[in-house]
Amino acid sequence: MERVPILKIGDILLVSIQVDMSDQTAIQLQEDLAERIVATGCHGVIIDITALDIVDSFVGRMLSTIASISKVLDAETVVVGMRPAVAITLVELGLSLNGIRTALNVERGMELIAASRSDEWDEMDVDEDHETTATS
Amino acid sequence: MERVPILKIGDILLVSIQVDMSDQTAIQLQEDLAERIVATGCHGVIIDITALDIVDSFVGRMLSTIASISKVLDAETVVVGMRPAVAITLVELGLSLNGIRTALNVERGMELIAASRSDEWDEMDVDEDHETTATS
Repeated sequence: MERVPILKIGDILLVSIQVDMSDQTAIQLQEDLAERIVATGCHGVIIDITALDIVDSFVGRMLSTIASISKVLDAETVVVGMRPAVAITLVELGLSLNGIRTALNVERGMELIAASRSDEWDEMDVDEDHETTATS
Repeated sequence: MERVPILKIGDILLVSIQVDMSDQTAIQLQEDLAERIVATGCHGVIIDITALDIVDSFVGRMLSTIASISKVLDAETVVVGMRPAVAITLVELGLSLNGIRTALNVERGMELIAASRSDEWDEMDVDEDHETTATS
């Protein structure tokens, strides 16, 4: 059985989907990801779908499930690398990727996760005013 | 034809090999990588082989070729995520990955590339003494 590798980069887990997802592979990936999020304490999951020519309802549902699982485990999911043709097909098929955030590429995805994490910190009213007074 | 995606993260190009490499896929990957190195000016290439159950002489040669091409284009190649069983098989088969540096995982690979880049700068005798004079 094929197993999709999960790479850890800093505070983020990166998954690059390249193989056709079977039921078994998808479930395995969900379990592996959940375990890795807990084990590493990562706060972001980036799923790269550059290699996918088509995103059907099965893959769409898998992405939604991963996003939901990650959310429960306090991690954000961003899907990156969607091809223009894939986006068009998604809309034509009437599939909306519910609850999934997207970004153009891995770097933008990382920025998105970093930004939303810092927003959360802001909301927690962390006061970071540092006043420097000049001494003459 | 399958095409292996190349992800850019900062100064590094990341390739995660998950599919069986055919002649055609391997050549395509080499060409794509060479183009991306030139286009992005990246100085490091990380090839993740976590998903590979076996590294035969064909894949070994491909990795060596990629490392050589990258070197000519002023980029370092590090192979990461080799499974213990793969390492044992490589040695048993008498295959040595000539000219290829390895690291345990992507993060270690990034550190390796960053360290070797800073070494090069040191050798170039870049004088970075900045003296600031206080005005009263």
